Amino acid sequence: MAVLPMKLNVGLVGGTGYTGVELLRLLAQHPNATLRCITSRKDAGTPVGDFFPSLRGHPALDRLAFCTPDEADPTECDVVFFATPHGVAMAQAETLTAANTKIIDLAADFRLQDPAEFERWYNMPHACPHLLKEAVYGLPEVNREAIRQARIVGNPGCYPTAVQLGFLPLLEANLVDAGNLIADCKSGVSGAGRKAEMSIIFPEAADNFAAYGVAGHRHHPEIKQGLRRMSKQQVQLTFTPHLAPMIRGIFATLYATLTDDSVDVQALFERRYAHEPFVDVLPAGKLPDTRSVRASNMVRIAVARRPHGVTVLVVEDNLVKGAAGQAVQNMNLMFGLPETTGLTALPVSP
Amino acid sequence: MAVLPMKLNVGLVGGTGYTGVELLRLLAQHPNATLRCITSRKDAGTPVGDFFPSLRGHPALDRLAFCTPDEADPTECDVVFFATPHGVAMAQAETLTAANTKIIDLAADFRLQDPAEFERWYNMPHACPHLLKEAVYGLPEVNREAIRQARIVGNPGCYPTAVQLGFLPLLEANLVDAGNLIADCKSGVSGAGRKAEMSIIFPEAADNFAAYGVAGHRHHPEIKQGLRRMSKQQVQLTFTPHLAPMIRGIFATLYATLTDDSVDVQALFERRYAHEPFVDVLPAGKLPDTRSVRASNMVRIAVARRPHGVTVLVVEDNLVKGAAGQAVQNMNLMFGLPETTGLTALPVSP
Amino acid sequence: MAVLPMKLNVGLVGGTGYTGVELLRLLAQHPNATLRCITSRKDAGTPVGDFFPSLRGHPALDRLAFCTPDEADPTECDVVFFATPHGVAMAQAETLTAANTKIIDLAADFRLQDPAEFERWYNMPHACPHLLKEAVYGLPEVNREAIRQARIVGNPGCYPTAVQLGFLPLLEANLVDAGNLIADCKSGVSGAGRKAEMSIIFPEAADNFAAYGVAGHRHHPEIKQGLRRMSKQQVQLTFTPHLAPMIRGIFATLYATLTDDSVDVQALFERRYAHEPFVDVLPAGKLPDTRSVRASNMVRIAVARRPHGVTVLVVEDNLVKGAAGQAVQNMNLMFGLPETTGLTALPVSP
Amino acid sequence: MAVLPMKLNVGLVGGTGYTGVELLRLLAQHPNATLRCITSRKDAGTPVGDFFPSLRGHPALDRLAFCTPDEADPTECDVVFFATPHGVAMAQAETLTAANTKIIDLAADFRLQDPAEFERWYNMPHACPHLLKEAVYGLPEVNREAIRQARIVGNPGCYPTAVQLGFLPLLEANLVDAGNLIADCKSGVSGAGRKAEMSIIFPEAADNFAAYGVAGHRHHPEIKQGLRRMSKQQVQLTFTPHLAPMIRGIFATLYATLTDDSVDVQALFERRYAHEPFVDVLPAGKLPDTRSVRASNMVRIAVARRPHGVTVLVVEDNLVKGAAGQAVQNMNLMFGLPETTGLTALPVSP
Repeated sequence: MAVLPMKLNVGLVGGTGYTGVELLRLLAQHPNATLRCITSRKDAGTPVGDFFPSLRGHPALDRLAFCTPDEADPTECDVVFFATPHGVAMAQAETLTAANTKIIDLAADFRLQDPAEFERWYNMPHACPHLLKEAVYGLPEVNREAIRQARIVGNPGCYPTAVQLGFLPLLEANLVDAGNLIADCKSGVSGAGRKAEMSIIFPEAADNFAAYGVAGHRHHPEIKQGLRRMSKQQVQLTFTPHLAPMIRGIFATLYATLTDDSVDVQALFERRYAHEPFVDVLPAGKLPDTRSVRASNMVRIAVARRPHGVTVLVVEDNLVKGAAGQAVQNMNLMFGLPETTGLTALPVSP
Repeated sequence: MAVLPMKLNVGLVGGTGYTGVELLRLLAQHPNATLRCITSRKDAGTPVGDFFPSLRGHPALDRLAFCTPDEADPTECDVVFFATPHGVAMAQAETLTAANTKIIDLAADFRLQDPAEFERWYNMPHACPHLLKEAVYGLPEVNREAIRQARIVGNPGCYPTAVQLGFLPLLEANLVDAGNLIADCKSGVSGAGRKAEMSIIFPEAADNFAAYGVAGHRHHPEIKQGLRRMSKQQVQLTFTPHLAPMIRGIFATLYATLTDDSVDVQALFERRYAHEPFVDVLPAGKLPDTRSVRASNMVRIAVARRPHGVTVLVVEDNLVKGAAGQAVQNMNLMFGLPETTGLTALPVSP
Repeated sequence: MAVLPMKLNVGLVGGTGYTGVELLRLLAQHPNATLRCITSRKDAGTPVGDFFPSLRGHPALDRLAFCTPDEADPTECDVVFFATPHGVAMAQAETLTAANTKIIDLAADFRLQDPAEFERWYNMPHACPHLLKEAVYGLPEVNREAIRQARIVGNPGCYPTAVQLGFLPLLEANLVDAGNLIADCKSGVSGAGRKAEMSIIFPEAADNFAAYGVAGHRHHPEIKQGLRRMSKQQVQLTFTPHLAPMIRGIFATLYATLTDDSVDVQALFERRYAHEPFVDVLPAGKLPDTRSVRASNMVRIAVARRPHGVTVLVVEDNLVKGAAGQAVQNMNLMFGLPETTGLTALPVSP
Repeated sequence: MAVLPMKLNVGLVGGTGYTGVELLRLLAQHPNATLRCITSRKDAGTPVGDFFPSLRGHPALDRLAFCTPDEADPTECDVVFFATPHGVAMAQAETLTAANTKIIDLAADFRLQDPAEFERWYNMPHACPHLLKEAVYGLPEVNREAIRQARIVGNPGCYPTAVQLGFLPLLEANLVDAGNLIADCKSGVSGAGRKAEMSIIFPEAADNFAAYGVAGHRHHPEIKQGLRRMSKQQVQLTFTPHLAPMIRGIFATLYATLTDDSVDVQALFERRYAHEPFVDVLPAGKLPDTRSVRASNMVRIAVARRPHGVTVLVVEDNLVKGAAGQAVQNMNLMFGLPETTGLTALPVSP
């Protein structure tokens, strides 16, 4: 007797941004997911394919239209993804968890474990500090077992994913001076979201390279929280985000001072990530580029020694491993599916 | 005795868009222009260099800040450029001309000679039809003498400049079927203006190619008006604008059916433009590209024969010859300066 | 009892270009294909993942390295794809067909049915005119039944696919003047192939738009051959290829004069392509863009009426429907698999 | 009596690369330069405008064609620029200096003062170590007086210019730990030169971000030599070059640890560069972007404090201040012209 594959009823709140459309792309092709509803107050009634012509004609999406939050009952879903502005997921978390619906929030509501820290950076009090306490930070390479048990996952930000995975083996092994870490990060423009803002229109952002958020970026406390957990030392991080003229991709160049000069960092990284399906440590001497992970959930990492120090180079697709792909990876874990389900598509290059 | 060079007092109304900053760039370097005032209600008080960091530190701009229309008295200027939305120039035209101040409008107020046509496309009645009547369409290659005498110049749109210059020799010589003209045009994204619009943010416009305005574009009647004047026949034009993922540049590919197959179109174009300082007819067999005119006032044209037909390929920088550069060219003519003054900078390539 | 899925042994000759890597991407994810060998004289011995880091770590490719033609025996394959320069496939066609191995050639060896025409455009005599006679032109929307029976398929070029699909409904229905067709085409730079050529290095091709091949392009006779078969009239085509600063994508803007002004072209196109899995006719008023098909096998088409004429706008991904994807579609047909197998991945956008 | 302006006879050896065409652009518009000859063995006989269509029709270039080294007598020039591969300038230096012709080399022959160091990095012995000894490193902000007296100037590399100007005020004032300097640099693709190389063709370099030369880059010893001269301490530098998908521009993000936490670095930088015509220190809180200096000789610098450290952000156009513009600046100094002559053109933005 053939066993029918598990079919999860999936809801998506706020599907009109870039993480939203990327979730639609991944979930429509996921063998165990059935998209039940996708809400957008502003675009209710619009078929998904009218909004994103790239999705036209797909059987899993064809009859799907955006609906208002009132038309949908997300509690009928097994899991709901929030691809919304900060603050939306925490307002619905109580109701959903009470109905046994799991939550994966791609915004920041469940990333910072300290409600005061959340309030400082997002200018609103946290709506459900008790649920925040049980929420799990969805970085599988660090928290896999906790994610399997979680009812609420705070999906990591794009920069934090790259930076944490790059520093992880070094901090866990206590091999670098955690008090002097530098993360020089470059992001494609889709990282700014699907927003009509002057600074990201094509003639402003194309053929140009800029720094931003040097004085303070919301991903800074998230990264620091993660690094602190990995490290036995006090953590001090300099984080410089830059905007590169490309659509997708994050390139993180990380600098740390080694406390033990004799360590074989290449071997360390290879060992740490040997069984990680989505972390590829490049052979010594090879350097990564962002297109080698374009549209895929893969992270590629290279390490380079320098006198008393190490440079770690990390690439990811900010919309996949940095957002929607990692969210699906978390869903797979939360429901006991093979972790790579629906995430094996090869990168698109060139 | 040395004669002091003529110094024109120049005003700029609405200097925060792309044609505005391009006018600033050109006028700051123009030996006969002194920028007196630049108005922007929204950004009044902001120094020009704060708004456009590329202009920081230039002696002609250093002490210049945007001011409100009330703080400036444009009638003290010899000439005022309008780099504003449609409708602004015509509201001030009466006052300025009465004060003997000349007007160069980079919007559409003085392009379409028929007020009804203007109203149909711009959804507002024309404010000064009597001044519209005397206004001159600022395409020097067609209207040079009239521009010299003009008090008001309607500066041509970017597409219309390229398309008219491409068809001009053929229509003047009555060598093509004017009832079946096709202009397949590709524009860089700056042609859409400096506006926070979703469709032109980098992740939407980059690595992408799109058509738009196929059902009707405001430049269509302007082009047709120009072609009609050149031609002895009825004119029928198909105009298809496209958006190309580049900052500047227009590439117009024009198709016409020859009525006389024996004509040497290469020689025709070379002859017609032999003395035009800003039209470069490429040698037979060479094809143009937009970067060969980037940041310059030059137009380059190639012609290619095909059975019974001719293909004309035209490139221009939409912000220079398609806007600010042509406006300065018109100013030079209106004040008896050598036509190329301030416009001889070489294209920037690569 | 479960029936094991058919597994085709697949060979790839010449896998180091863009159509090669795209075939690898598609075939690695195809449920009925097993990659047996991939030859490249120059890069023999190099693992595929070293050459294309985007393919690192995929189970179907992990143990695959390029080999010399001598190390591989392609006759052991069920089908061999040629992603080679022109002239290679025809040299091996005799041997392969004799061994009952089917051939899908992505170069031009089996596209032009007239050997003299082939010789004129490719400067070499055809090596096997008798096999050329039986070869089938692999445009499924036109030749589906013949492809199912074919031993050799000449896979269409990128431009020819877009242009033929755009004119097809009009010519079949004999509704336009076939003696005056215009195809104004814009291609991403990957269409030029993976070649170290000065004209396509980034600083030359970026932020630039150029025409090329106006005097004659090898795709011209291929397109004309296709259009001639569809039409009852003499065909005259003007074909202008342009290079747009994007990686992938073809945008074809087609112009034709209607012989019957009363026809509903929108309905005509919708009817003609109603059952085509990879042709999407957009609703009236919508216009396509290339990113809506990026990395997918989909073609999207819009039609727009104009006085006495019709403009057809076609987008495709030149590496997928314009090359590797269409080749896989042909393989599916030749082996009785569902036509869309392995080709259902959604476009990647943004 | 009017004094005629000084007219320098200028030669250019090797004018077919990007620094060559940029020199042509700048020198053609320089009021005191007359281009006498431009040599290129490979392209001798080709008019400059055929090679670089952007230069077509300029009076100073119109009659200029590339010539072979034998046809030109560079010793008739007052100054010769070398925009050649490494090794060419040093082979002609003896002859030229003997003829009283000054030399500005844009390659590396006269950058590294230690001939052994030169040999190590460029794999050739230095041809004239005695001339190397008198050659001056052409960074005016450091060496202005020496440049005025120089017969031979080694024009700095693009990365070295940005990195040295960024660290200069800090090292001169001995305020940072010179033993732990980090330069994370991002360059536009034109920095790789005008070469037909696979790694920089558009489909490889566009929409992509990559690191390279992490294990060792030829600019590293040049930067270190410069920093060593500025510093009283031992210098240790980590230099990570990256390739960004843009045509021009260098963005250098520099990290240093402050030895004195109380210093006002903003004031330090403003003071140091107050009288430099081509260094613009941005107001506190502002961050630079590369387009704000596109096609101009300006460098813009921002400084940002962080706990115990400082981040310096520097932008320049790699082809202007990073190559041809700085070379012209050096020429102006060597011949007693005002330093900014021919270099005042405003940046092109957008």
